Amino acid sequence: MTSSPLSLEARSQADDPSSLVMRFGADEPLIMDSGVALAPWQIAYQTYGTLNAGRSNAVLICHALTGDQHVANDNPVTGKPGWWLTMVGPGKPVDTNRFFVICANVIGGCMGTTGPASTDPATSQPYALNFPVVTIRDMVRAQAALIDKLGIETLFCVLGGSMGGMQVLQWAASYSHRVFAALPIATAARHSAQNIAFHEVGRQAVMADPDWRGGRYLLEGTRPSKGLAVARMGAHITYLSEMALHRKFGRNFQDRSAPTFSFDADFQIESYLRYQGISFVERFDANSYLYVTRAMDYFDLAAEHGGSLAKVFKGSATRFCVISFTSDWLFPTSDSRAIVHALNAAAASVGFVEVESDKGHDAFLLDEPAMFAAASGFIDAAARVRGIA
Amino acid sequence: MTSSPLSLEARSQADDPSSLVMRFGADEPLIMDSGVALAPWQIAYQTYGTLNAGRSNAVLICHALTGDQHVANDNPVTGKPGWWLTMVGPGKPVDTNRFFVICANVIGGCMGTTGPASTDPATSQPYALNFPVVTIRDMVRAQAALIDKLGIETLFCVLGGSMGGMQVLQWAASYSHRVFAALPIATAARHSAQNIAFHEVGRQAVMADPDWRGGRYLLEGTRPSKGLAVARMGAHITYLSEMALHRKFGRNFQDRSAPTFSFDADFQIESYLRYQGISFVERFDANSYLYVTRAMDYFDLAAEHGGSLAKVFKGSATRFCVISFTSDWLFPTSDSRAIVHALNAAAASVGFVEVESDKGHDAFLLDEPAMFAAASGFIDAAARVRGIA
Repeated sequence: MTSSPLSLEARSQADDPSSLVMRFGADEPLIMDSGVALAPWQIAYQTYGTLNAGRSNAVLICHALTGDQHVANDNPVTGKPGWWLTMVGPGKPVDTNRFFVICANVIGGCMGTTGPASTDPATSQPYALNFPVVTIRDMVRAQAALIDKLGIETLFCVLGGSMGGMQVLQWAASYSHRVFAALPIATAARHSAQNIAFHEVGRQAVMADPDWRGGRYLLEGTRPSKGLAVARMGAHITYLSEMALHRKFGRNFQDRSAPTFSFDADFQIESYLRYQGISFVERFDANSYLYVTRAMDYFDLAAEHGGSLAKVFKGSATRFCVISFTSDWLFPTSDSRAIVHALNAAAASVGFVEVESDKGHDAFLLDEPAMFAAASGFIDAAARVRGIA
Repeated sequence: MTSSPLSLEARSQADDPSSLVMRFGADEPLIMDSGVALAPWQIAYQTYGTLNAGRSNAVLICHALTGDQHVANDNPVTGKPGWWLTMVGPGKPVDTNRFFVICANVIGGCMGTTGPASTDPATSQPYALNFPVVTIRDMVRAQAALIDKLGIETLFCVLGGSMGGMQVLQWAASYSHRVFAALPIATAARHSAQNIAFHEVGRQAVMADPDWRGGRYLLEGTRPSKGLAVARMGAHITYLSEMALHRKFGRNFQDRSAPTFSFDADFQIESYLRYQGISFVERFDANSYLYVTRAMDYFDLAAEHGGSLAKVFKGSATRFCVISFTSDWLFPTSDSRAIVHALNAAAASVGFVEVESDKGHDAFLLDEPAMFAAASGFIDAAARVRGIA
């Protein structure tokens, strides 16, 4: 396979994204959990709404594994609408008429924040696997550096789902005094063995693709598209529920009522999955997929505090609202309950809502009125306490 | 990659397995659901125990996706013990001192029964994708032909788990008068959309491997080992439960207490999965994996009878015992309940046991005393009615 326009676009996107970018120089390294001091580095972000005079109305949204900073605007790479328009915008639970909303691409990502597809200044080539392994705490450190530069001391609210929720919890753990309210959704304080296993299969699928080239595909003009597509297909199943799949696709055949007795995409679910795989590789860097899944696998908040999650939150003044979904088997309600129990044990302020839904893990991205009601109620009450009009 | 001894062994094994083989000539075609008349063809099988004078004590065991005929003897290919020694043997629930036990490799398989790795007499080359797509009903037709040749009119019992259970149900549907007792375990009367989706990811992983060569790898001296290993890793997760994974591996690191900040197999679960993938490709043919998963996907017993599962079993004199496991999320208890409800609606004789287990789908292969007790009780009672000493 020869170099495609897409891989050039991917490189260009990595260094010069179509969004705001905060750059940190050689004297402002990002000190990472691996021990690496990354410099120079940059973080790509979007903002919505206006920071008030008291700088008290800033809301940070943390994105999930394959998300990005384009939470509430058309995505310049895919042309698709922002990924959380249901939650963020004028009159929405995160009301951009009242709040100054920030969303940044994670470190290790591929939408403009420094990651494995970015140019390593030492070699003028993409980092590839020379990029240091990142953690959720590194992502949060990078966001904190951005917030500092923006002159914001305390975030009114930090929220996000899935890996975004992990960052919310890490913010509350690392920078408790800088988080007034925290809203972790469909998440866990540590990644389970089963979830690590699913991620490992995805990484092995990428690495099994000969076009991955030991991570050096951008240099060698290839793309591990088939491997990354397989990884995405497998992961996508875990984001849904059997009920949702059954309702949407059942055992329906494609355009006909009988099997073709072939290996074509005979069932609608097969064709849907193949499309999910193919469309994903157009927008996501394979090495970033390795790095960001690895960050989730490493996440174990209690491990930083001798195994006690309650100790993590001891003395926290942050108010929390934890949301889970009944049909989410990737981050089941039991994971959210563990967070709530720890917050209770730490005498923190916490509300908990388990939303009845059959849409699986992806419910947090979909039209779930009970989630919107819970989020609105929590944010509005916190805003009153905070004195935000 | 050049031709390896393994691929030669695989071909040899496909035509000349180390087990009993029943051969069917050009005048004895297997008429398949696809419309193909397969001839000549053969079925590889093992037997244990002795057929009694009345020919009334024959038990057929149906194997699962990656199983084979070596149910209770050392496997000549892997050197490992038989796959269901807990259930089959002297004094076991399927007591080889009392019963004549038969287990045959499925059509489309790779352990001696005709499948895609077998030599196509028309070309003297492996069939590869020229092999007709098989169904569960085709597997059962092939077994019925074997039973005919063995001179057995009625099977005392047909049993099996997972895909084996699908065959049990198909036996009871297609040859009700030839099945005295049926014991489907951890199975379903139709494959769910989620399970089709998992299979499709596995097939795509195989097909994405350039060494698959459009299925012609045996001819071209390659093996799609990486793709098949990825498929197996993903599937293996679905055979276990989150509880089992957590108990066995948790978030334990390999040989150390801290992360390596690399993409090595850092967690024990990763190294376990990689081993599962690597060891699987030593014993299983990639094209067979495509064919046999496809057969499971196509399985929908009620579809043969206008969507009514009760109609399938109407008037059946077979007695049934259905077994499921609480932590099996691949073939959840709800699937077994659907079978039981249909049998009840058909006024069939049916018992149902949901075994409390945290071992997931693979529980049917493991040490589950409640399963053994249920199976023994059912088989012994049926044997008394059947008049088998």
